[in-house]
Amino acid sequence: MAINKGYSAREDETFMEISPADFFYRNRDLAGFNNPTRAIYSAIRELLENSLDACELYGIPPKIFFRLSFEGGEKGEPSESTYLLKIMDNGSGIPQEYIPSAFGQILFGSKYKLRQVRGTFGLGGKMAILYGQITTNGTARILSSIGKREIYEFNLRIDIQSNKPEILGRRVQENKNHWHGTIVEFALDGDYPRAMPKILEYLQQTAMVNPYAEIVFIDPRGRLYRFESVTSKMPEPPKEVLPHPYGCDVETIRRIINVTTCHNMLCFMSKHFHRVGRITAQRFLDYAGIDSALNPEKLNSDEIVRIVQMMKSYTGFLPPDASCLSPLGTELLEAGIMKELEPEFVYIEQRDPSAYSGFPFIIEVGVAYGGNTASNSNFTLYRFANKIPLLYDEASDISRRILNEKKDWKRYKIRPDMPIAFFVHVCSTKVPYKTVGKEYIADRPELEKEIRNGVNSVSRRLSRFLSRQISIEHERRRISLFKLYLPKIAQFSTDLSPRKRKVPDVNPLLDDLRRYQEESA
Amino acid sequence: MAINKGYSAREDETFMEISPADFFYRNRDLAGFNNPTRAIYSAIRELLENSLDACELYGIPPKIFFRLSFEGGEKGEPSESTYLLKIMDNGSGIPQEYIPSAFGQILFGSKYKLRQVRGTFGLGGKMAILYGQITTNGTARILSSIGKREIYEFNLRIDIQSNKPEILGRRVQENKNHWHGTIVEFALDGDYPRAMPKILEYLQQTAMVNPYAEIVFIDPRGRLYRFESVTSKMPEPPKEVLPHPYGCDVETIRRIINVTTCHNMLCFMSKHFHRVGRITAQRFLDYAGIDSALNPEKLNSDEIVRIVQMMKSYTGFLPPDASCLSPLGTELLEAGIMKELEPEFVYIEQRDPSAYSGFPFIIEVGVAYGGNTASNSNFTLYRFANKIPLLYDEASDISRRILNEKKDWKRYKIRPDMPIAFFVHVCSTKVPYKTVGKEYIADRPELEKEIRNGVNSVSRRLSRFLSRQISIEHERRRISLFKLYLPKIAQFSTDLSPRKRKVPDVNPLLDDLRRYQEESA
Repeated sequence: MAINKGYSAREDETFMEISPADFFYRNRDLAGFNNPTRAIYSAIRELLENSLDACELYGIPPKIFFRLSFEGGEKGEPSESTYLLKIMDNGSGIPQEYIPSAFGQILFGSKYKLRQVRGTFGLGGKMAILYGQITTNGTARILSSIGKREIYEFNLRIDIQSNKPEILGRRVQENKNHWHGTIVEFALDGDYPRAMPKILEYLQQTAMVNPYAEIVFIDPRGRLYRFESVTSKMPEPPKEVLPHPYGCDVETIRRIINVTTCHNMLCFMSKHFHRVGRITAQRFLDYAGIDSALNPEKLNSDEIVRIVQMMKSYTGFLPPDASCLSPLGTELLEAGIMKELEPEFVYIEQRDPSAYSGFPFIIEVGVAYGGNTASNSNFTLYRFANKIPLLYDEASDISRRILNEKKDWKRYKIRPDMPIAFFVHVCSTKVPYKTVGKEYIADRPELEKEIRNGVNSVSRRLSRFLSRQISIEHERRRISLFKLYLPKIAQFSTDLSPRKRKVPDVNPLLDDLRRYQEESA
Repeated sequence: MAINKGYSAREDETFMEISPADFFYRNRDLAGFNNPTRAIYSAIRELLENSLDACELYGIPPKIFFRLSFEGGEKGEPSESTYLLKIMDNGSGIPQEYIPSAFGQILFGSKYKLRQVRGTFGLGGKMAILYGQITTNGTARILSSIGKREIYEFNLRIDIQSNKPEILGRRVQENKNHWHGTIVEFALDGDYPRAMPKILEYLQQTAMVNPYAEIVFIDPRGRLYRFESVTSKMPEPPKEVLPHPYGCDVETIRRIINVTTCHNMLCFMSKHFHRVGRITAQRFLDYAGIDSALNPEKLNSDEIVRIVQMMKSYTGFLPPDASCLSPLGTELLEAGIMKELEPEFVYIEQRDPSAYSGFPFIIEVGVAYGGNTASNSNFTLYRFANKIPLLYDEASDISRRILNEKKDWKRYKIRPDMPIAFFVHVCSTKVPYKTVGKEYIADRPELEKEIRNGVNSVSRRLSRFLSRQISIEHERRRISLFKLYLPKIAQFSTDLSPRKRKVPDVNPLLDDLRRYQEESA
């Protein structure tokens, strides 16, 4: 390859490093902050989800209050204005030493663990604050207490280029009532009039799958929306789990080797992996031909690769245990749906736990018919993941794809334009979102299979209900025919009889028919 | 809010900071590395796009060679194997001091500028190497030269937890032929048999919109795919641009203040913004009521916010200049489509430049009919952004949405199940992707409008072609009727004639009709 004429060497090309904050500042479309409408929606949902997590992880029934108030208008685009967003929760609170970074440093947080939480990227809350800062040049005010003697208040901004919190003020107050929780307050630009429908839909669906939470929202027009808790029953807080061998890659094994206190492979295998005890560990080491007395630090690169391959091919591991998951349960989900849609028929199925790449998951699938369920050209779909409603980008979601690709609706006597809604809730220690903005779920084959089977199963139930509806209707028509003609036949037969007789009473016969119909319904 | 019983304080909650490399390692679904099939597709396309950029930015006609070779099988999942990926380009090369970070550090690179390039996140190439590393524990071998005396070779891996390149070997060779370019080689696990159709489709479409590039691919089965360049005409290399005032937020202004050498606002405004010269700068400062002699460093927080607001509302700025963009042009795109699809009809329209949030963009829209264009239930759609084909998540893309929502096809005599393909190419200094994996484009209203108008416009052209097709068909049928009956009528009239005459020759008449038809076609 000869040198091209006119070609100038790359020495003048400037290379640079950017911070994670700078990356997401430059690419805020990725995190759901692409325009003034979407930004205000994303800010509210990210902070609300953080608050719900802060309560639920500690078994605290959430009481969350938030308010969006108008600050000023006359922005460049029509109906874009400045708002003040304040959110207050009764969650666990944040230890004071972590407050600045928890709100002012991207890729810092408590979410980087294997457990079922709403937040997974440790990004949303900070993106909201960052967006507020770049649109209003304002700062964020954070108050938090873990229920001890003091309440800490910080006033801060994010230094985007260095990805560090810049503390502009700090105050300590006495915490007489042992209050615990967090208050976040900052200004941001947005388009509330346009965002409103999605925000209200989001709150309504959140209430549907978090029936133990109380959420109060005061909007910029002064309207109060109150979603009361309909149950005091809290789900079990999700537990953190070790990595499952099926989900381990070379990097996982390297990291465990760096921190392990084990001096032999038997200890190593039985201590650091999900559902691997000493017996399974020994069996696996025998299978993989690894000396159980080997010091894990002595493993060379090829051996690490071999272990990972063996972990993937060994069939003797127990499947991931879903006890670390906190699904909603059929009762709570049914109650939520009944409250919101008042359907004629609803059926929820919780699928058996399964796993993808070593991450356990549980799918809950539901179907509702009639009531306030809207008729759609192709069913209504409600999607949830770890108790978050997903409202955007439905077209790319795995559940929508399954509904669209299913061709045998006729078998179920179901037509896509009937007033039918499907519900899909994915619970996992790691929901495979395709976007940082948590809009939709990637098509992992294991998830797809469970959702598909769930949809088939609830459709069969609906089909049975619909058939019965049809047969009841049929019976009803039959009886009304009998009712009409039996007395006439009785009269007619009596008239024909040579001996003068009383007209026989047909009512017992009709009663029998009616009873039979009710019993078979 | 009283303290909840059973509640344990959050002091035991562990907070941590993770590096950008660790973030994308944990969330590789985000970057298109979600499964063995997708990973191998993403690795190839990311490296290929980097190579194309490395050539095009310097006006070098790209000659890219890459090879995927089988290394070993028996992975956990069926048909998952280890492959060696090698890619070689004749691009500008990378100065030696930047090589390790350019391949071993996430969020480091030369892509963080306002200019039209394929790569925008500075992430893809490193994600490919990272994926190779975590699946095979291998290292990456990089060779590069900028055409000077030496070729530098590095052997490296990414330290994921610290996000730093770890250099395991370094060699210097003499560069006798002044070769410039880059070679990247590393092993990764993947599922080539499944990925193959998408990879070949990707290459084919890449060839379609990069007709000046020569791409050679040898696949693991030893098959050679060669996409020859059909033109030596290179588009103008894209230029870097200053930020346009409409796209500036508070952070942009703060950063410019930090680096400016200007001591007054007139200099500041006329030096750092796209299409703002001294006259516009003075007019703007008058409009905003800012003293043109003010030292920009003296601007306080409120004044910065005010400037940003004024920039958004001032109508006197010139629109962004699209001369920094490098669209394909109607000729090249038409040539590419003709070569691949051989349609009966093709029409391309380049829309006038426009801008969103201060970023200039140009939309190219095309339509093809017949030939190898597949009939689909709802048109075939080819999507491109900065000369990259987008193959995944079409359902969420703005262009697909526009086609689906368009209801007036009848006006154009077009039915969605005809063999019609639409082409949409978005060129911009910043393509608003919704995912790091560059799968689809966000729905910015300005983009939407241009694409919609483009679709309408090319549809009208197609409609005219189809009407003419119908009228030609009509004419043809008319002539064949004439051909059938004219001789008979001639014969008949001759027979009827009282005087015996020769049958008149109808051929001149038929020839006239045929000529007339051809002329009107």
